[in-house]
Amino acid sequence: MALFSMNVENLQQLFVEQLRDLYDGEQQITEALPKLIEKASNPQLKSALQEHLDITKRQITRLEQIFQGLGEKPTGESCKGMKGVIKEGDDVVGKAKDAAVRDASIITSAQRVEHYEIAGYGTVKTYARQLNKAEYARILEEILNEEKEADQKLTQIAESVNIEAKAA
Amino acid sequence: MALFSMNVENLQQLFVEQLRDLYDGEQQITEALPKLIEKASNPQLKSALQEHLDITKRQITRLEQIFQGLGEKPTGESCKGMKGVIKEGDDVVGKAKDAAVRDASIITSAQRVEHYEIAGYGTVKTYARQLNKAEYARILEEILNEEKEADQKLTQIAESVNIEAKAA
Repeated sequence: MALFSMNVENLQQLFVEQLRDLYDGEQQITEALPKLIEKASNPQLKSALQEHLDITKRQITRLEQIFQGLGEKPTGESCKGMKGVIKEGDDVVGKAKDAAVRDASIITSAQRVEHYEIAGYGTVKTYARQLNKAEYARILEEILNEEKEADQKLTQIAESVNIEAKAA
Repeated sequence: MALFSMNVENLQQLFVEQLRDLYDGEQQITEALPKLIEKASNPQLKSALQEHLDITKRQITRLEQIFQGLGEKPTGESCKGMKGVIKEGDDVVGKAKDAAVRDASIITSAQRVEHYEIAGYGTVKTYARQLNKAEYARILEEILNEEKEADQKLTQIAESVNIEAKAA
């Protein structure tokens, strides 16, 4: 996982390590989302993914502010978890030939990404609180809520997309 | 992702494909959990992971019943997403030398696994409903709720574990 292997000795170090993991994951998402936007057919889905790409870029900036405050570099971790989740999504989306089925597969892939992030931000928000870093906890909770909203929006869009996919 | 590449033409096929993905993911979890149980120090955490291993085995049996009902084979998909999530967890747990920090890293890894599954079961439950397979939707919702409960239990255990990890 680490480009250079480093021991994690306490909660503060685990906090930084997990933030780096999320930071790398967000970078991977900014590369993966444009491809999904291109492959999506449903206009609502296209627009939701585009909106989430913009949000992701702002999340990266906020993570960089936290790293700056901590006096730590944001780089150094390659998130294998996110890599696997994105690769899995590429494969399932690639197998869907019908537009509505492809949209349904894009939604399920994007929701796996969102949930991976929900778990990650839930963890670092809790660490920040326990380390008495209230301002970072607030920022991380804000990002966590954005990920939850993105997941809920995808669930809503899935309703109409799945009906089309059923009829395919 | 597929051991044999297969196109996915409609929601029914996407449903089966996603069930296979979850089935393979659960198999991976039954292999990964014993190692995490061995590495965990906190008795509550050990017992929660052991309980989840037993639940996972019962989930596999229920998934097999669904495959039988559908007249489909459960095998044929290798879940790259889960593979990445588990590998990520192995790495972070391996870096933690202090027992409480290791427990905290086990919890964050296990929660990433749970959320990956929450996304997956949320999707197939919805597909089952839209395909008018009410009995499968009920079983999948039951499994989904078990994953959500496991995630919540881990959040509770994290509270005391993180306090110890902070003091490490």
